[in-house]
Amino acid sequence: MRAIDGLRERLAELADLAGLSRLAAWDQEVMMPAGGTESRAHQLATLERHAHKLATGDEIGAWLEELESDASELNDLERDIVRIARRDWNRQRRVPAELVGRLARAASEGQLIWRNAREAADFAAFVPALARNVELAREYAACFPDAARPYDALLDDYDYGLRSERLEPLFARLADGLAPLIERAAERESAGLVVVPVPAQQAAVKATLARLGVNDEDWRLDVSAHPFSQSLAQHDLRITTRYGDDSGLESIVAALHEFGHGLYEHQIAPELERTNLAGGTSMSVHESQSKLWENHVARNPAFARVIAAALADAGFAITPQKLSAAVNEIRPSLIRVSADQLTYPLHIVLRFELETALIGGQLEVADLPGAWNDGMRRLLGVSVPDDGVGVLQDIHWAAGLFGYFPSYALGAVIAAQLWQHLEREIGAQDEALADGEVGAVRDWLREHVHRYGRRLDTEPLVERATGTPLAVEPFLDHALRALG
Amino acid sequence: MRAIDGLRERLAELADLAGLSRLAAWDQEVMMPAGGTESRAHQLATLERHAHKLATGDEIGAWLEELESDASELNDLERDIVRIARRDWNRQRRVPAELVGRLARAASEGQLIWRNAREAADFAAFVPALARNVELAREYAACFPDAARPYDALLDDYDYGLRSERLEPLFARLADGLAPLIERAAERESAGLVVVPVPAQQAAVKATLARLGVNDEDWRLDVSAHPFSQSLAQHDLRITTRYGDDSGLESIVAALHEFGHGLYEHQIAPELERTNLAGGTSMSVHESQSKLWENHVARNPAFARVIAAALADAGFAITPQKLSAAVNEIRPSLIRVSADQLTYPLHIVLRFELETALIGGQLEVADLPGAWNDGMRRLLGVSVPDDGVGVLQDIHWAAGLFGYFPSYALGAVIAAQLWQHLEREIGAQDEALADGEVGAVRDWLREHVHRYGRRLDTEPLVERATGTPLAVEPFLDHALRALG
Repeated sequence: MRAIDGLRERLAELADLAGLSRLAAWDQEVMMPAGGTESRAHQLATLERHAHKLATGDEIGAWLEELESDASELNDLERDIVRIARRDWNRQRRVPAELVGRLARAASEGQLIWRNAREAADFAAFVPALARNVELAREYAACFPDAARPYDALLDDYDYGLRSERLEPLFARLADGLAPLIERAAERESAGLVVVPVPAQQAAVKATLARLGVNDEDWRLDVSAHPFSQSLAQHDLRITTRYGDDSGLESIVAALHEFGHGLYEHQIAPELERTNLAGGTSMSVHESQSKLWENHVARNPAFARVIAAALADAGFAITPQKLSAAVNEIRPSLIRVSADQLTYPLHIVLRFELETALIGGQLEVADLPGAWNDGMRRLLGVSVPDDGVGVLQDIHWAAGLFGYFPSYALGAVIAAQLWQHLEREIGAQDEALADGEVGAVRDWLREHVHRYGRRLDTEPLVERATGTPLAVEPFLDHALRALG
Repeated sequence: MRAIDGLRERLAELADLAGLSRLAAWDQEVMMPAGGTESRAHQLATLERHAHKLATGDEIGAWLEELESDASELNDLERDIVRIARRDWNRQRRVPAELVGRLARAASEGQLIWRNAREAADFAAFVPALARNVELAREYAACFPDAARPYDALLDDYDYGLRSERLEPLFARLADGLAPLIERAAERESAGLVVVPVPAQQAAVKATLARLGVNDEDWRLDVSAHPFSQSLAQHDLRITTRYGDDSGLESIVAALHEFGHGLYEHQIAPELERTNLAGGTSMSVHESQSKLWENHVARNPAFARVIAAALADAGFAITPQKLSAAVNEIRPSLIRVSADQLTYPLHIVLRFELETALIGGQLEVADLPGAWNDGMRRLLGVSVPDDGVGVLQDIHWAAGLFGYFPSYALGAVIAAQLWQHLEREIGAQDEALADGEVGAVRDWLREHVHRYGRRLDTEPLVERATGTPLAVEPFLDHALRALG
């Protein structure tokens, strides 16, 4: 077999196994009876172990060497396949299997301990597990001695090529720019919670998604405790939302957010399927796609007409103005996952400051709650009553995920930059959105973002799509407009 | 690592991958959007290929040789693990990995083509796919030159140790014994179709299953085009049924049938989990468990009280007598899956005749519809109007499943033999069934059938559970009683 064929066949197998792993994860959240928990953990661990073995085999190294020594017979796509395969193989080979095992066990135990600690708002109970996770993350980062800082090695797993040195000024500018806007927002009158009966929410979610192009042929919509999306394949896209009597319009906004993730995978160039290039290029670009549909469509005053009409069809009357005010409510609060679009990035700025200091060794785990509470006061003007709704609120650090948080804020930043440029290129979308027409937006995103898959990393992608380097100004402009 | 530990770890991994394969199959029928078909076929083929590789590794042969040469340190369970591992390894080593891949792909594509062909009642459109499946089944059978006939090699995959030579007289006696009973049934007045509104069917299915012990902790109930069950693990059991305005009480009878399959896997001894012994021992014993709950519980005149009460709670009034008459209606018909319990085995006798002839080379695929229609006339006195409700009605051959059909009839035969003996040992169940009490039946089945998993093959299991060899007389006795 030619080296390129051997490599491509292996990558196709890895894509297949990854699809099954995503199926098992989706099923666990959405369908599986609770009794299946233990056997599902075994099934997933076995699958991961075998995928890891297949992804790190010596034969891949041999294929790559041969292909790199003479790339003359490769087309452009194959050159990118080889380039990314080399990157992935090198990264995975650097991490000893026993460290992977220790990381997985610590992450699993950490989440267990965290759940109880959060419930009891008892940070002290979580300290040893978190300290171990920080220690292991440093050990993992040390596998990549070329990184400028250990934290950058972690960042590379989620956003290859991003550097904390680059993020620091971006996030500082974001915090500075948002502070006066949030002060201004505090002076506005609250729109109050819009209480929508769950059946009307369900009908409106379905109707709104249908307007965006969600059909039964390629998509599933389900309910889960936390909304998420899982793309099993380019034509097997699964998104969830959640409905609550007191959750206002969250079900609709969350559904559009998850739709953005699904659409990204759906519109990757078909020729990339079952290669290592199929899939979003990074966490931040993936999040930019969900945030684009969340912030720039679902929360767009023009699109409020579409949602209001869907609710009216379901028997719930609300004016587009009132609906728009409700989904654009701005109010500093304690909890990241329910934060509005302006204060949300500040929750991330805080986490970024703290986790870079933890990994860099400037902050001790024991001092984390104090630093958290200070940061919440400084950035959001909020007092934290206890650690359960403070430093213990997120699962990420308990699961050993460091370097993951920045993508949540970068997603909103990139979304604003893409949207601004998209409207410059194809014109203002207000009229089209008011009519529920999003074909032009879908097409622009396919052409400038989606189709590349992993062929372009975050910053090159943003620069090619918008003609300018990654910047926070478009988001700040959007934030100003969101204040009305 | 000790040989027994190496072997057991490998078998546990294989159990995990098999669970994932069943998840993917379940999802495909119940949840997957149609767009996922192609990628799911790839995913399943890759998973099968890797499982096959893991199941056939040289290291297993080395472990087995070591364990067979000195079994003194093994306990009884481990001896059975080694015995069955040897059998499975020998069988799988005979089949080349590339043939396994071709079988999987052909099965997946065959089902797709069959779906359209059945819809259009167009057998010609299905001929190439079916011919390929027959060819591949022969190629597969040829991997086992020791089998007395190629068909026996296929049979061994579903019912190890059964022989077509043994089945022929059993099935002949069954057809002979049933003929006069079916003639007698034709003289009875028809009970007519009981039309139950779908919401009442749904409520009654749920309530009746709950009486049998189905809970949300370990079970899922869904809807699929063709009812089936899939046990992802001992505590993750998934069954489906289907509802139709004109389907009478089929949804309830089918749900109890699938419950029987699930309960078998649920009650296998816990110590067998993640070994090669967890799982039903054969297709026919598995089918005996579904048929037992279908024929001897769901259709039991005593249990009719429970179903009628569940329907009454859902607002549908029917007397137990009328309900019992309806679910025991005997009437030759075209479609196997909706056939009554007396004519059902004759549908199987026909398929057994045809598939043994296809595999044996005495029948060409192109001649199949004619042979089918002749057989339906001879065995059931029924004329087939078109192939959609004739030879195209079943998915099995489209999925490359040959040697599978006999288990459906054997299941009914074994169920009757088990039920007869169960009532001899723990007494007539009429009173308990009238009260919806099935604890004693569940316990007897656990003790005498379920807990063994694969430790006993079909005929030894039946003989140990009932004290007599496999025989059709108990089923014929039951059939006579079902005539009232």
